[in-house]
Amino acid sequence: MKISARNQIPGVIVQVTKGQTTAHVRVDIGNGTIVTSSITNESVDELQLKVGDHVVAIVKASDVMIGK
Amino acid sequence: MKISARNQIPGVIVQVTKGQTTAHVRVDIGNGTIVTSSITNESVDELQLKVGDHVVAIVKASDVMIGK
Amino acid sequence: MKISARNQIPGVIVQVTKGQTTAHVRVDIGNGTIVTSSITNESVDELQLKVGDHVVAIVKASDVMIGK
Amino acid sequence: MKISARNQIPGVIVQVTKGQTTAHVRVDIGNGTIVTSSITNESVDELQLKVGDHVVAIVKASDVMIGK
Amino acid sequence: MKISARNQIPGVIVQVTKGQTTAHVRVDIGNGTIVTSSITNESVDELQLKVGDHVVAIVKASDVMIGK
Amino acid sequence: MKISARNQIPGVIVQVTKGQTTAHVRVDIGNGTIVTSSITNESVDELQLKVGDHVVAIVKASDVMIGK
Repeated sequence: MKISARNQIPGVIVQVTKGQTTAHVRVDIGNGTIVTSSITNESVDELQLKVGDHVVAIVKASDVMIGK
Repeated sequence: MKISARNQIPGVIVQVTKGQTTAHVRVDIGNGTIVTSSITNESVDELQLKVGDHVVAIVKASDVMIGK
Repeated sequence: MKISARNQIPGVIVQVTKGQTTAHVRVDIGNGTIVTSSITNESVDELQLKVGDHVVAIVKASDVMIGK
Repeated sequence: MKISARNQIPGVIVQVTKGQTTAHVRVDIGNGTIVTSSITNESVDELQLKVGDHVVAIVKASDVMIGK
Repeated sequence: MKISARNQIPGVIVQVTKGQTTAHVRVDIGNGTIVTSSITNESVDELQLKVGDHVVAIVKASDVMIGK
Repeated sequence: MKISARNQIPGVIVQVTKGQTTAHVRVDIGNGTIVTSSITNESVDELQLKVGDHVVAIVKASDVMIGK
């Protein structure tokens, strides 16, 4: 399945932190840049996300702001 | 001003396309990765965004999904 | 690729309307319910979205509100 | 009050899970499809959301992606 | 219908600008503060939004960032 | 740094509540209106957000709905 989201950046998971309902997943996308994702615990379980996994950080274009 | 958004990725604008109300700004963040941002024309005007500008692509952690 | 987004609802495209930069895609998910998606024209082109296509409407859990 | 959000899908709550600050509410919208919503605990309390409630899952069009 | 969104700020519409698919609606919420909303043209038509209307600007808590 | 987000409303923090991963920050923007923001605990720590801080509530135009 291809997704309409314009931004799909490959990287490697470097940290997974689960709270009671919400988890934070950090993905190293290279160049020393870490992307932080806040998703449900269920997503972490269902995709069996863990440190070292090769994943894609996905962001819809309408959720990207510009700072200058 | 510092912003709470977890993801602030530096890059260079490679394209600015304005529609009637909504503009698309493409930012090269290195490694051959282009981030696309959909923002208002007013933002483009107010920040005077143009090709070659050094900018920061900003994304709130809750807007990042993971694909695996 | 599996995606972390909790909501992935299958349906059939019933309308595609392109503006100058932003397109609206309507998806019939059954029971007479139409889901409207606002995405970039580029996404419509890249996925070659057209009426009759079997697609999936994808929504992150943090983007769903409840009315009662 | 009418809301501008394009997607307002009726359903019945089948699960409410509260964390420390964030709750997950699952809504059965028919056809075996469950929509998951991540909202604040305060919203759950204020709307007194509980299993069996007839509610509406609300999503802005700009938060809907398409997979194909 | 009550909505789970934490932020519902009353105001008066001071400008409506329609593009080909996306409209911008500006709402004066008092104290000289104008809130800009980007919604579909269909929403503007369906709610018959026009200058002078008393409306509510609605924002989900997970879409609010903090700058300091 | 200037940000493209159309809505940047100044106010004063009146409450900070941290969960296991997600925090809620309430900002008084005047006129008796409180804006609630849901952000990561890390953001609260990094910006050292506390009651009494003068801050700005930031919202992208595409995340604002209209109710009428």
